[in-house]
Amino acid sequence: MSLLIKNGTILTAASEFTGDIYIEGETIRQIGTNLSVNASQTIDASGKYVMPGGVDEHVHYGSFGGRLFETAEAAAAGGTTTIVDFAPQEKGVPLLDAIRRQAAKAEHTSSVDFAFHAVIMDPKESVFEEVRHLPEVGVATLKLFMAYKGTAFYCDDEAILSAMMNAKDAGVTMMVHAENADIITILTRYYLSQGKTAPVYHYYARPPIAEEEATGRAIALAKAADCPLFVVHVSIREAMEAIRNAHNGGWPIFGETCTHYLTLTTDCLDKPGFEGAKYICSPPLRPQEHVDALWQAVREGWLTAVGSDHCALDGGYEGAKKKGTNFSNVPNGCPGVQDRLALLWTYGVCTGKITRRKFVELFAANPAKVVGLPNKGELRIGADADVVIFDPEWKGIITNKDSLHGIDYEPFEGFEIQGRPQQVFLRGRLVAENGRFVGERGMGRWQKCKPYGLCYDYYHK
Amino acid sequence: MSLLIKNGTILTAASEFTGDIYIEGETIRQIGTNLSVNASQTIDASGKYVMPGGVDEHVHYGSFGGRLFETAEAAAAGGTTTIVDFAPQEKGVPLLDAIRRQAAKAEHTSSVDFAFHAVIMDPKESVFEEVRHLPEVGVATLKLFMAYKGTAFYCDDEAILSAMMNAKDAGVTMMVHAENADIITILTRYYLSQGKTAPVYHYYARPPIAEEEATGRAIALAKAADCPLFVVHVSIREAMEAIRNAHNGGWPIFGETCTHYLTLTTDCLDKPGFEGAKYICSPPLRPQEHVDALWQAVREGWLTAVGSDHCALDGGYEGAKKKGTNFSNVPNGCPGVQDRLALLWTYGVCTGKITRRKFVELFAANPAKVVGLPNKGELRIGADADVVIFDPEWKGIITNKDSLHGIDYEPFEGFEIQGRPQQVFLRGRLVAENGRFVGERGMGRWQKCKPYGLCYDYYHK
Amino acid sequence: MSLLIKNGTILTAASEFTGDIYIEGETIRQIGTNLSVNASQTIDASGKYVMPGGVDEHVHYGSFGGRLFETAEAAAAGGTTTIVDFAPQEKGVPLLDAIRRQAAKAEHTSSVDFAFHAVIMDPKESVFEEVRHLPEVGVATLKLFMAYKGTAFYCDDEAILSAMMNAKDAGVTMMVHAENADIITILTRYYLSQGKTAPVYHYYARPPIAEEEATGRAIALAKAADCPLFVVHVSIREAMEAIRNAHNGGWPIFGETCTHYLTLTTDCLDKPGFEGAKYICSPPLRPQEHVDALWQAVREGWLTAVGSDHCALDGGYEGAKKKGTNFSNVPNGCPGVQDRLALLWTYGVCTGKITRRKFVELFAANPAKVVGLPNKGELRIGADADVVIFDPEWKGIITNKDSLHGIDYEPFEGFEIQGRPQQVFLRGRLVAENGRFVGERGMGRWQKCKPYGLCYDYYHK
Amino acid sequence: MSLLIKNGTILTAASEFTGDIYIEGETIRQIGTNLSVNASQTIDASGKYVMPGGVDEHVHYGSFGGRLFETAEAAAAGGTTTIVDFAPQEKGVPLLDAIRRQAAKAEHTSSVDFAFHAVIMDPKESVFEEVRHLPEVGVATLKLFMAYKGTAFYCDDEAILSAMMNAKDAGVTMMVHAENADIITILTRYYLSQGKTAPVYHYYARPPIAEEEATGRAIALAKAADCPLFVVHVSIREAMEAIRNAHNGGWPIFGETCTHYLTLTTDCLDKPGFEGAKYICSPPLRPQEHVDALWQAVREGWLTAVGSDHCALDGGYEGAKKKGTNFSNVPNGCPGVQDRLALLWTYGVCTGKITRRKFVELFAANPAKVVGLPNKGELRIGADADVVIFDPEWKGIITNKDSLHGIDYEPFEGFEIQGRPQQVFLRGRLVAENGRFVGERGMGRWQKCKPYGLCYDYYHK
Repeated sequence: MSLLIKNGTILTAASEFTGDIYIEGETIRQIGTNLSVNASQTIDASGKYVMPGGVDEHVHYGSFGGRLFETAEAAAAGGTTTIVDFAPQEKGVPLLDAIRRQAAKAEHTSSVDFAFHAVIMDPKESVFEEVRHLPEVGVATLKLFMAYKGTAFYCDDEAILSAMMNAKDAGVTMMVHAENADIITILTRYYLSQGKTAPVYHYYARPPIAEEEATGRAIALAKAADCPLFVVHVSIREAMEAIRNAHNGGWPIFGETCTHYLTLTTDCLDKPGFEGAKYICSPPLRPQEHVDALWQAVREGWLTAVGSDHCALDGGYEGAKKKGTNFSNVPNGCPGVQDRLALLWTYGVCTGKITRRKFVELFAANPAKVVGLPNKGELRIGADADVVIFDPEWKGIITNKDSLHGIDYEPFEGFEIQGRPQQVFLRGRLVAENGRFVGERGMGRWQKCKPYGLCYDYYHK
Repeated sequence: MSLLIKNGTILTAASEFTGDIYIEGETIRQIGTNLSVNASQTIDASGKYVMPGGVDEHVHYGSFGGRLFETAEAAAAGGTTTIVDFAPQEKGVPLLDAIRRQAAKAEHTSSVDFAFHAVIMDPKESVFEEVRHLPEVGVATLKLFMAYKGTAFYCDDEAILSAMMNAKDAGVTMMVHAENADIITILTRYYLSQGKTAPVYHYYARPPIAEEEATGRAIALAKAADCPLFVVHVSIREAMEAIRNAHNGGWPIFGETCTHYLTLTTDCLDKPGFEGAKYICSPPLRPQEHVDALWQAVREGWLTAVGSDHCALDGGYEGAKKKGTNFSNVPNGCPGVQDRLALLWTYGVCTGKITRRKFVELFAANPAKVVGLPNKGELRIGADADVVIFDPEWKGIITNKDSLHGIDYEPFEGFEIQGRPQQVFLRGRLVAENGRFVGERGMGRWQKCKPYGLCYDYYHK
Repeated sequence: MSLLIKNGTILTAASEFTGDIYIEGETIRQIGTNLSVNASQTIDASGKYVMPGGVDEHVHYGSFGGRLFETAEAAAAGGTTTIVDFAPQEKGVPLLDAIRRQAAKAEHTSSVDFAFHAVIMDPKESVFEEVRHLPEVGVATLKLFMAYKGTAFYCDDEAILSAMMNAKDAGVTMMVHAENADIITILTRYYLSQGKTAPVYHYYARPPIAEEEATGRAIALAKAADCPLFVVHVSIREAMEAIRNAHNGGWPIFGETCTHYLTLTTDCLDKPGFEGAKYICSPPLRPQEHVDALWQAVREGWLTAVGSDHCALDGGYEGAKKKGTNFSNVPNGCPGVQDRLALLWTYGVCTGKITRRKFVELFAANPAKVVGLPNKGELRIGADADVVIFDPEWKGIITNKDSLHGIDYEPFEGFEIQGRPQQVFLRGRLVAENGRFVGERGMGRWQKCKPYGLCYDYYHK
Repeated sequence: MSLLIKNGTILTAASEFTGDIYIEGETIRQIGTNLSVNASQTIDASGKYVMPGGVDEHVHYGSFGGRLFETAEAAAAGGTTTIVDFAPQEKGVPLLDAIRRQAAKAEHTSSVDFAFHAVIMDPKESVFEEVRHLPEVGVATLKLFMAYKGTAFYCDDEAILSAMMNAKDAGVTMMVHAENADIITILTRYYLSQGKTAPVYHYYARPPIAEEEATGRAIALAKAADCPLFVVHVSIREAMEAIRNAHNGGWPIFGETCTHYLTLTTDCLDKPGFEGAKYICSPPLRPQEHVDALWQAVREGWLTAVGSDHCALDGGYEGAKKKGTNFSNVPNGCPGVQDRLALLWTYGVCTGKITRRKFVELFAANPAKVVGLPNKGELRIGADADVVIFDPEWKGIITNKDSLHGIDYEPFEGFEIQGRPQQVFLRGRLVAENGRFVGERGMGRWQKCKPYGLCYDYYHK
């Protein structure tokens, strides 16, 4: 099996140029002009961009997101060929076992490649020591939750610091969900006591200061442990500034933001009736000033990647979110894995907020480097042949009937879109075409991550 | 009883000038030139400074500091006529009762006037609600501890935020001891596990980042509660900067530092043998760069007051501190109430780091305003006649045999001193002369504090 | 001659209290309660504030402002008893002679006390050396202009730095008008070339960046010369921040703002017709965000004083300003010396933006300290008996028919005012009562300034 | 002519991988694994890095640097295949003519490719308007000098702002040499008057504050003009921070530093006798803290490129620099074009300060993008075949006898070096091998730059 994609505008994180890409089996073998090779298939990509398949470092697949097949197929249709899921531990279950269990869910169901972040939910000394062994099973990232006190997710500072002290010795990248649990507890109680139950109070009960505080604390703990840190789903200006200031001081502190924090605002939570519940995720959607700050952050490189935090809850709006009786018991999470490329391109590249090179970094190259997948996210000789042929002329509108995620609403309903993946290849095989999934169910493979990813650059040589 | 102090250089927070002060009973009645009044006693203060008696807003008297009589007499000899002690609650005891109990200890033992900060040690909803009633018993400040997890002192963020939400409605000023408990726990365990037991590891186990983090968190909680805050014993540049930055943003965030953080460094902890234990207090003494930053902070007004954090532990060095087997079980605290004036004057005023006006603010006027004692800390018509006649020409050396604090060592042993209180008057009565206590034991009185102190200026009109 | 003011609420920069003030001749002699002195006159000030007469450190009297008698009488009526004028040098005239000439204008015309800032308009080595001799004639401040290139006012960096190197050795306080001359030249040319001639283009041609740049440069020059600096009429957030940041670095950099920058905005320049010309002064009025920042700056002490920059141009609006054909040739300057107290009190104290103590600092105490007048600006034993008895209950509206400044418009026309000076005393003599001047024309006296004013605190011991 | 480089580790700004590069004529045609092409020459690069030829955006070739042939050959030997020289205007000569004249000097003498920055030395309206036409002759950058008042180089703020307002409309990138001319004038005069003539006073007369001020001013002018800016040879922490802060505010402000500011310190100027003169360049070498800050700046991307500022003065040390009688009349400039790769690799990559990817950016990719040369600085299909085969195992020492620059000293004499270009190809032709020039004299060609370079990314779409 071989494939020659000819005359496309090849787009990488470093440059763009017109040329041909030759794929043999699952791998990119040659890039050049007028390549004279014999390929089983040849595609003329004139007038199209040829870019790496996306890597979405923040996807709830088996973890909390109920829709397995659909999530992976939505990813493929949206130009994302690798998703990174979470492997939440259960109490008493070793971390490595939790990962293997989670991987088992994805094997034979995921139609795109997949990898995992470990998640500690049983913080204790023996588990912290397991952290050193994560790379042995192909996991090089560990996520802890500073929010959700009173649940198994919550880790106090002692747990975080203990995990960091083990992680850094093994090149495992620490990730945190940074919101101050106690502020949220008190404010939630306060608003409920005032009869403020509407979805928009989800925002007031989780104000920017709760995220700002926890981000600052996570950074302090990382400094105390002398350990690199990656803050997930940064949603506010102040958190981005704290990360930037840490960089100013020479510390290896990084972060991501997510598609919805770049395109939606708190106003969505304030839609009539209970409809705001569709947009309940944590941290909550923020006012426009934060949206502006986050675009600047991704442009300037203070935030390193853009994930979807896709979470297609079983039941969707009618069957799950709407069953909440107040903002505090609506299940958290929104879908988005299919829309990440479209939104970043249309609202980033087309508006001049980011260059095409930067787009490739945020969408594919950097997420792969952060989680430790050297053969993903790049059009590079020897890399996996995950390739998107992108038609920049296509115009459309996001609507739930075109979404493959398998639930009953689309948070970006009605958004105008410029450009679309015409073909998406996963390791050389066609998986999606013009918004439809055309691959083979379960064709995805577990990608083992390598430790000492991007956050360790300039560190721990 | 009346007293006329003539021809002194009168020193206030606003200005200095030559003049006379006339005291009738316990109160300052007139200030002028060539006052022609009949006074029972007249003192010629030519060539001397006449300044308000000091207010030390951070003294352990009945709280943890074992030496009662001695602490008050040392204060008087050092020019301090009002001390503010802490009233730690015991589990199950209402806050207001704890205050009354603590006051009972001071009645008949304290030879200088005294007031109290409340301290929560049994954090729960009913106690938080008591906070609103503190002003009823003459207490307008409440201190919580972010350090010392595992003891009754520790308050988590939920407790702090709950206390703040009650405090602000009553004009009670929140105070915090800001060090991250978990960082200290982990690092203490780490150093002990490495056999690092010497007193200097007290510093390494409580590094600047632990104070920086907690200070930032306390400020965030104050912002979330929209409540003024006073951070006690700030010891590092970064904490001072966090307070300054909060001011830059228009927030009512204040702080104090202490005499020892302005004059001693981490080197003291590293003295031969176990002698460093003499200097164990928390936060620990810091390297010189922090000392420099703190002088700048008090000069520029980013820190508002200088307390002594006096704690004359029963047993002193030989009987208490030396009994510790490693840095982590040495009792915390150092004496200093007698030396505050001498050190601020000699190492602040005489070196040009602060003006005399600023000295009066830090030593007397501001502490009184912070805790809510309008008749203390100022040479003002109608104020209490707490007056120091200060001889700026005297020169001497601090040595434990001249210290009245009643323990066996002096942290500032050997420090050269310029100037000394020649006479100290408490409410018009002589209490100290040339370093000796000459007053009447137990002559101090409980001063009831008023809410809405200095930290509420520009707030809660 | 003696005067006893009884039972007023005495207001100083340090505190407030009820008491009596006794004045003998020109001097404050006693402050106390129930003073039993024989005074030629006794006033009952119950229910009134008794505060120091104002010191306005930024007044154009003989310099550019044409109205001499009127300016001084307006000052008196508004509670200001000392004005500091400028003494612009003419080419070839020694600095000291220029000062004496300017003083001659004020002798016998000014009804309030007066002092001077030197102004270099013939920058050359011999003039720079004269700077060292300014204190000999009672001048301790020197103002240079970074704006107005092409006129005699303009000083380039070499002149400023040369002046600084001389000033600091004599304790002379450097002042600068900080706007980048070249930016203004280019933008003025640009807007005129576009036919944009309306008064509001005065703002666009002198944008915040022009002031921000020059302020930064002045600070850099002060650092290069190691010389204290006082930036006059700071009008923007960024300039205030630059001053604040210099303080953060330990540099003796200070500044003032003016009444109109605290109360008026760019909108005034945009009034219909040519009426905006009434508000043309430099730096121009700024948008509201800067107004807010400046209130914060005076509250927090980053800006040290509030002057009026009073300039009652001969001809006023109809006879002078309206004769301009476009924004660039309207004479600069607005009146305001009479309104300073009223505006600071009503829009500062009454709104809770500043405390009464802070008001006294900004209005009287600090300006006196900055220019070097130790007997002005304070209610202090031995100080000049410049006293305002202020009725806080009075309510009124500013209107030009009540203004004594002698021109045909009032920039603050229609502003509601709370409180009014009931009596104003200059060195013990009544000069104004309830808004009317009741003193003797020309009763003001030249006040000689002392070098090493407030900006040298913590410096040059 | 064709060339196949096989099995090297191909190094780009985006990634590294093992592969083959196929060059046809002057252009890179294919990159792949196991390329089966017929090439006239095949080189096995196993164990070597294959990287783009360097682009040095700051070289004095015909401008001031006297050594033409030698400079270009030194560049080639050091792995730099494109140099960007300056085209200083003479009074009365149109800018475009000055560029053509300068190009004529390089044609037939330069053995590497070359391009030009325009330089205004006759600032006037007609010249500012010429700026819009620079791209027509292949120049897209314009450098102005804020230093050197009293010479034709000097431009005042009006000139800079005028140039900027024209430049931005044509996509020309503004560059400034940022040092405050007046501070230097005054301090030079001062030190000479004190008899301080040694080379080290070059540093004291051009202190960091002179560069800090001018950098701040240049940024302010760029903001006023709304024009991108590239600050050349940034040498201090404060200037780098000003650029970083401008980025924080969303402004397109960029900068470079130079090899010597990353590797040498002020100590060099203080060598015995007059030897410090060898190191006299402007801005001067700085203390170590700035060196550290600059490495951080290039690592984090706050500074975008590293040039050499190579200036091989005719006469070198004995015949030129040593003829100076004091620090102020020593000709400025040092050689360095040959050492740039060696120093960045050894002291940057090998010490872990920068990654190999970052090295490629600083050394080749970014300089090309800044000046507008899309076919330079990258190993990319369709780009010029400027290729370095780099042997990372070689070890050596920099010494003047190995330097080809044609003068009598080497500023980096004695520096240990790790790695060396084994072969250097210019557009497919071998020009250097193992430190020797083996190309053809004058084989370099004028590269025409395109406007709207990297500094216009996110701007002027």
